[in-house]
Amino acid sequence: MSLQKIAHVPPPTVGPSASVMEAVELMAEEGVGAVAVVDKDELRGIFTERDVMLRVVLKNRNPAQTRVSEVMTSPPQTAPDDMPLDEALNFLLDKHIRHLPIVDREGGIHGMLSLRNLLEHMVGYLQRELHSLDQYMANDGPGG
Amino acid sequence: MSLQKIAHVPPPTVGPSASVMEAVELMAEEGVGAVAVVDKDELRGIFTERDVMLRVVLKNRNPAQTRVSEVMTSPPQTAPDDMPLDEALNFLLDKHIRHLPIVDREGGIHGMLSLRNLLEHMVGYLQRELHSLDQYMANDGPGG
Repeated sequence: MSLQKIAHVPPPTVGPSASVMEAVELMAEEGVGAVAVVDKDELRGIFTERDVMLRVVLKNRNPAQTRVSEVMTSPPQTAPDDMPLDEALNFLLDKHIRHLPIVDREGGIHGMLSLRNLLEHMVGYLQRELHSLDQYMANDGPGG
Repeated sequence: MSLQKIAHVPPPTVGPSASVMEAVELMAEEGVGAVAVVDKDELRGIFTERDVMLRVVLKNRNPAQTRVSEVMTSPPQTAPDDMPLDEALNFLLDKHIRHLPIVDREGGIHGMLSLRNLLEHMVGYLQRELHSLDQYMANDGPGG
């Protein structure tokens, strides 16, 4: 299937010379935790709420005077649109990240996939499996 | 089963009069996105990296001069240690939150459960189910 079907499309984007404050304003408006940094239709980086905390606040940078290009992750991890769902999940967990830009071969970005998007897509499954696991741990499981 | 078995134990905590910067330093050290705000062994609130972005940076507050008590969520959503896993997941998704302090009846806090803790606990299940779902969507599913 297509990751774009469950991702945030179109992705929230800013230019590299946008300020951290502009990126934060966009994340607040869109209710998301990451923006793609795009220059001339090409993905240059990703900037997240964790970067706001660790690379701006913790480092005493001024959000109005710091450009996202100074504090973004570049190049970012990305995924093609046809990456299988289980691989996308594995990738997010392995890399300890929450967002994955969906890109084409030319470096254009078509969506932003979040861990939450994946979860919400399969919440019915998840709840049934967690219920089973809980019963198992309560009755028979190790240390149950 | 016990949520404490998969939660972050002991939970990272700060006092209500700690500064935002102190809370950020603790989150950075522990590699987490939320701290519990505790006063006299009682849970008073929760403060997260999203709060750093939306309630501090976006509002032009000074991280060194703002107390967490001014910008925390209080009272926080909480869960008892024996809440079933599926209920905990449902709760996190419904409330659109990522962290859940595990508390006893006296208001003491014993751990901090994150969405990531739940996911990592059941990653084997998840990958198999996502793989099946992906196959289904590719072959027979709606719009496949």
